[in-house]
Amino acid sequence: MLASQVTDYPRWFQDVIAKAELAENGPVRGTMVVRPYGYGIWELLQEAMNRRIKATGASNAYFPLLIPESYLQREAEHVEGFSPELAVVTHAGGKQLEEPAVIRPTSETVIGEYLAKWIQSYRDLPLLLNQWANVVRWELRPRLFLRTTEFLWQEGHTAHVSAEDARAYATRILYDVYREVMVDVLAIPVVVGRKTRRERFAGAINTMTLEAMTGDGKALQMGTSHELGQNFARAFDISYLSREGRRELAWTTSWGSSTRMVGGLIMVHGDDNGLRVPPAVAPVQVVVLVVKDEAITAAHAIADDLTAAGVRVTVDARADQPFGRRAVNWELKGVPIRVEVGPRDLAAGTATVVRRLRDSAKSAVNLTDLTSTVGAALDADQAHLLSEATAKQSARITAVSTIDEAIEAAASGWATIPYDAVGEEGEDSLAESGITVRCLQRPDGTLPTEDNEQGLTAYVARSY
Amino acid sequence: MLASQVTDYPRWFQDVIAKAELAENGPVRGTMVVRPYGYGIWELLQEAMNRRIKATGASNAYFPLLIPESYLQREAEHVEGFSPELAVVTHAGGKQLEEPAVIRPTSETVIGEYLAKWIQSYRDLPLLLNQWANVVRWELRPRLFLRTTEFLWQEGHTAHVSAEDARAYATRILYDVYREVMVDVLAIPVVVGRKTRRERFAGAINTMTLEAMTGDGKALQMGTSHELGQNFARAFDISYLSREGRRELAWTTSWGSSTRMVGGLIMVHGDDNGLRVPPAVAPVQVVVLVVKDEAITAAHAIADDLTAAGVRVTVDARADQPFGRRAVNWELKGVPIRVEVGPRDLAAGTATVVRRLRDSAKSAVNLTDLTSTVGAALDADQAHLLSEATAKQSARITAVSTIDEAIEAAASGWATIPYDAVGEEGEDSLAESGITVRCLQRPDGTLPTEDNEQGLTAYVARSY
Ligand SMILES: [Zn+2]
Ligand SMILES: [Zn+2]
Repeated sequence: MLASQVTDYPRWFQDVIAKAELAENGPVRGTMVVRPYGYGIWELLQEAMNRRIKATGASNAYFPLLIPESYLQREAEHVEGFSPELAVVTHAGGKQLEEPAVIRPTSETVIGEYLAKWIQSYRDLPLLLNQWANVVRWELRPRLFLRTTEFLWQEGHTAHVSAEDARAYATRILYDVYREVMVDVLAIPVVVGRKTRRERFAGAINTMTLEAMTGDGKALQMGTSHELGQNFARAFDISYLSREGRRELAWTTSWGSSTRMVGGLIMVHGDDNGLRVPPAVAPVQVVVLVVKDEAITAAHAIADDLTAAGVRVTVDARADQPFGRRAVNWELKGVPIRVEVGPRDLAAGTATVVRRLRDSAKSAVNLTDLTSTVGAALDADQAHLLSEATAKQSARITAVSTIDEAIEAAASGWATIPYDAVGEEGEDSLAESGITVRCLQRPDGTLPTEDNEQGLTAYVARSY
Repeated sequence: MLASQVTDYPRWFQDVIAKAELAENGPVRGTMVVRPYGYGIWELLQEAMNRRIKATGASNAYFPLLIPESYLQREAEHVEGFSPELAVVTHAGGKQLEEPAVIRPTSETVIGEYLAKWIQSYRDLPLLLNQWANVVRWELRPRLFLRTTEFLWQEGHTAHVSAEDARAYATRILYDVYREVMVDVLAIPVVVGRKTRRERFAGAINTMTLEAMTGDGKALQMGTSHELGQNFARAFDISYLSREGRRELAWTTSWGSSTRMVGGLIMVHGDDNGLRVPPAVAPVQVVVLVVKDEAITAAHAIADDLTAAGVRVTVDARADQPFGRRAVNWELKGVPIRVEVGPRDLAAGTATVVRRLRDSAKSAVNLTDLTSTVGAALDADQAHLLSEATAKQSARITAVSTIDEAIEAAASGWATIPYDAVGEEGEDSLAESGITVRCLQRPDGTLPTEDNEQGLTAYVARSY
């Protein structure tokens, strides 16, 4: 049995990951083994993300895992941000290395070095790169999917002729790639905003973020897009000859999203019966469950029809094992639709359709209508997950006007508060209660473009 | 200008990689930056491989980069094979680690640990896993794509109830996945055979290989599939309860292919004008070259038609840059087809089609026939590359009967020789001349199943 969400949310999260066979701890502390079912979700998510990244004009490339230690020291603020998290290779090929190499915690520095070589003229800009890679950041309190020592991610790195162009591109990634995947594919409502100075990425002049609300009312940062200004361009000499023949520093951006999104999916959609996977990223959208052996042929025929209609289907034909236990197991795995096929249903020309994403509502469906009914249910239930999560999120956001009220509200959800009532000192007091400003928005929900804009709304919460 | 293949093949190889913008050296010795054009080839290759791997029933998963040093010591022969190549993390999170972690050189050991946990009953078998990952093996003489300290690859790891089942699966990967991708997708003829005892993978009872012939007549190992017998199962206690209720050791396999295949593609198909990319993995299958500005609209219309027909197209509209230089550059990149569009062509209702894979043969094609002509040419030229490479390979394989003749033949190509005339001592003498037995075949071209079969043919060559 799973722990219940209300009684012990962290235990529930661990249980779901273990029992749905999503992942396990690796042998080196803080690392993760992603099992086939968890990796299947990641592959579909990755595909959705990758397609949209390419649509913005970026190309994939691959930069090395190992970075000379000296590279990290070039951008002072950046090295400060990462040095406690680094894993260092000191020996290789049976010898001590002359210069230790760090395993990339992120690739701004090594990519900066190559952008400097490849960019000569304004004709070479914008240069839009992305890579899918593993990174390592030594974690003191690791947690599967949310904060692992090694994780899988995509990191984009781009260079532009102007601050405006860099900002426009970083913002396009934020909305057209990240927000769209999170909302349309993962069915996760996200609040999009600007980080405060205190919370921004080491070396950035602006960090934009997408924050999801977990089942226990905390915030989870699902992705970030950074304007790096000319900081990295200056440190790595990324410059170009302008149309007017002047040498100018480029403006760079970086942006990343990771396997942490799978953690978000679990926490936003999961319930006391286990995982619930949005159909768009479900490795198995429909399981056809054979109740008794006599139904095997019919089950395969149903599965074939669904497959032909483009649905990802599995047949569970283990009729020698208890039906109830198998059904519970598919609930646990969060497979959106179960089609149960038994001799009695077949005699009536029907099968039983169970919709996991609708509180496991059951109905008898005529076999002739099955494929179209299932297809429509998958679409409807994808939309339902999003509206359900949106409603839950709204219900747990409280508008307050003082720091004390914010602290109280953040005990069980998020607070919104005028940032003018918080400020940098207010962030310090919040931090004492383990609470941070997750992001800032203008009253109309758009993003502030300056650090000192007045009249901003702060989203305040505990976070993962 | 490129170095010529005949004059200086290693220099030619380096030049092609640099000038076609495929890759560069990374900052840590032996590492590689894969640039977008090179990575685009890898992505298409990876997709072709991944689809076929999944068709055999395997699932993708992900295991950690870092492996406790002690794991590698469990399978004695395995640790011996890899220890000089390991990169070791001794510090992380600002402290010395209690147990150093090695960066995976391959994942048999860590995956073995998890297979042992996941496999309990014969019902859990076969368990068929694959992962796409980076691995690190410290190289003394690194060379881009062929032998880099870090490379990208897929590694499959499976467990089975019997030796027969393990062998059948390892062989299926060899032929239905690897051989098919190499021949049908990369247009590279490969000789498929069994490694001698001397050349096999550390810890395997049988290593099967696919060997390509490079432009300088050497051999390049393009992929391997290993039967590991019960060696890893014994070391990691991968056992299962049989149908009869007995505890039995499983039989495991592993198999891998890597970015080295891109090196093979360059060496097998490249010529003195640069790279030649098989259409199936060409990121750009057709470049539409605008000769003069007036032709831009027509060029885009042509590109749109080709795109609609499923062709990967780029428009080169840089009419302000010398036409000749642009054409040479696309030759260098090995783009299969160039469609040149100029005002004179347009007036005649034609465009010029240049086929890179057919010695850059030119012809004027009516605009109305262009899409179908180009589509047919792509298919025909994919086939042409394969038959050309096959003919070249055959012409450079000499059948000999003594070791001295083999050494002579291997100076410029491969030799075949009865393995009974070589044996393990013969392999030692060949090694003194830098020559190895690449693989063994039966007279009918099938694979030997035992180490001691008589009447086998050995393929003998210098190699990368
Ligand atoms: Zn609901
Ligand atoms: Zn030819």
